[in-house]
Amino acid sequence: MRVDSVPEATLRRLPSYYHYLLRLREKGQELISAAQIGVALGVHHTQVRKDLAVTGSQGRPKVGHRVDDLIASIEEFLNWNNVSDAFLVGAGHMGTALLGYEGFERAGVRIVAAFDASPRRAGKKIQGVSVLPVEKFPDLARRMHVVIGILTVPAEDAQGVAEMMVASGIQAIWNFAPIVLELPETVIVEDVALYSSLGVLSRRLAVRRKSAAARDSVRAGP
Amino acid sequence: MRVDSVPEATLRRLPSYYHYLLRLREKGQELISAAQIGVALGVHHTQVRKDLAVTGSQGRPKVGHRVDDLIASIEEFLNWNNVSDAFLVGAGHMGTALLGYEGFERAGVRIVAAFDASPRRAGKKIQGVSVLPVEKFPDLARRMHVVIGILTVPAEDAQGVAEMMVASGIQAIWNFAPIVLELPETVIVEDVALYSSLGVLSRRLAVRRKSAAARDSVRAGP
Repeated sequence: MRVDSVPEATLRRLPSYYHYLLRLREKGQELISAAQIGVALGVHHTQVRKDLAVTGSQGRPKVGHRVDDLIASIEEFLNWNNVSDAFLVGAGHMGTALLGYEGFERAGVRIVAAFDASPRRAGKKIQGVSVLPVEKFPDLARRMHVVIGILTVPAEDAQGVAEMMVASGIQAIWNFAPIVLELPETVIVEDVALYSSLGVLSRRLAVRRKSAAARDSVRAGP
Repeated sequence: MRVDSVPEATLRRLPSYYHYLLRLREKGQELISAAQIGVALGVHHTQVRKDLAVTGSQGRPKVGHRVDDLIASIEEFLNWNNVSDAFLVGAGHMGTALLGYEGFERAGVRIVAAFDASPRRAGKKIQGVSVLPVEKFPDLARRMHVVIGILTVPAEDAQGVAEMMVASGIQAIWNFAPIVLELPETVIVEDVALYSSLGVLSRRLAVRRKSAAARDSVRAGP
């Protein structure tokens, strides 16, 4: 059953509108049109209008949207004004980076504890967040009603840890491990595919080089 | 001009096939069919076949692909066997995480130097990579013919640093800052949109909760 009729592409664009709007507000701009957002972010204005419509924000013809209202509508739509607690497992480099990243709270998620299998890491504090032995995850997740798990363990441990999270009541996993998790369909999984992203970049650069080389050889003549 | 006729969605799926194939190889599996990959990763088998076709790997009917061959074909297609040097700017939490992340080299990118505007960070070594003052970026990028820039600075500094990168000969930017960079169209930009990803997760969880609440109230009766 589809419980959310909003297209995923819209969900992914809204945060970039949001950050653009925050910058406008900082600069003191009070009004904005869908067309202006479209030009600034390279999205067709009809698409911007459709995206903004899902948030319920009402723009006025020839006037546009109030920047403040639009920011508030997106925050509410994305549930960002309703901060949820999250547990992170894997306090290595990526985990530490996320613990130190500012602003996730503004995006609706507060990391309240971190867990690690290594006794070397457990017991420390990273960016003010305590790192606990991973064995404590199930009991604490249930007692604190935490439903978001952030997975920053190595690929080979990810499936096992994800299953432990789900068994502990976690409903949504933000996965940084480069594997496709095999979990019940009821679990929400959002992958941050760093390798895929790097793959796209590498490939585009290779194609660019090949076409530049072909152009040069045409210019040089036969 | 489109220089690459391969759909972006294919480029994004290939790394997940690749990591799945690596796991199969570790387990000792020698042959794999597009159908099996599809079932394991939740992609329709006709799509898997189309995706694999772009790499030039030839499967045999009723036998499938050799796992080794397929891994090699994807590596070559994504240009991952041709490692490019990259410079990273912003040696904060996210930058440090990327410097410590293993396996980017296998994905075709080697971070050879990091740069930071803060004198506190410049001069240090992080994960064996030297952190240099950001002023040294232009000269070094040109001398070392580095064309990939990794941007892990705060949002407010990102546009300026990206422009400096482009002026220094950088052709492709892997952007972790939550802003839409305004750069010449010739520059390849690949965004890692952590906030968008978190936005999708938050929204799905909110929708899930609302529908669960609605279900409960129906069950409880009027």
